[in-house]
Amino acid sequence: MTPINLAEKLAQISTHWDPHVIAAYNGNDIMVVKFQGEFPYHLHENTDDFFLVLRGEMVMDLQGESHAVRTGEIFVVPQGVTHRPRADKECEVLLIEPKGEPNTGDLATASAKPHL
Amino acid sequence: MTPINLAEKLAQISTHWDPHVIAAYNGNDIMVVKFQGEFPYHLHENTDDFFLVLRGEMVMDLQGESHAVRTGEIFVVPQGVTHRPRADKECEVLLIEPKGEPNTGDLATASAKPHL
Repeated sequence: MTPINLAEKLAQISTHWDPHVIAAYNGNDIMVVKFQGEFPYHLHENTDDFFLVLRGEMVMDLQGESHAVRTGEIFVVPQGVTHRPRADKECEVLLIEPKGEPNTGDLATASAKPHL
Repeated sequence: MTPINLAEKLAQISTHWDPHVIAAYNGNDIMVVKFQGEFPYHLHENTDDFFLVLRGEMVMDLQGESHAVRTGEIFVVPQGVTHRPRADKECEVLLIEPKGEPNTGDLATASAKPHL
């Protein structure tokens, strides 16, 4: 039981779209990730997807609408909703998903989500 | 589905130790709260307790140890662990607990957790 500094954890990450687990909450992975560019459209069949922008700005594309999500803003994508995060400039995000959930919604194409 | 601005939500809160629900994630309440002073020692029998300090600094007292938790830091209190948050100066916190979980761990003494 110790405080976890988000900036220190993010400083250890040099890749984009590569979530790293920094804590656990009731079977969920608490992760930090850097976004830049465009992630593929995907959905999570059995879980909501939680995003909090810590630095910078991202866009959440849904099918038919897009939302800018800025520093200090949360966006929760409900279970089953197809979405695509993207960011013109590098953006830092706190992400929450159930432990083991693939970031693409599909194990075959997912990142490994190492612990920091 | 819309971005939720944490600062805007916090600006609507004038009381301390009074969590307000701003979003939902898989049956959890995502809340913002202002801390100042000292909360009673308590525990949550069936859930972890997630804190992210958004502004200011709090102290998490456990029995036998204390941790300063500063802006941009997370502290997760594991299920069943007795704890007491406190803050000398006002501090703003993002809190995650299962929907309906009393903030004191006990319905008889808990805040109502209204939605913002």
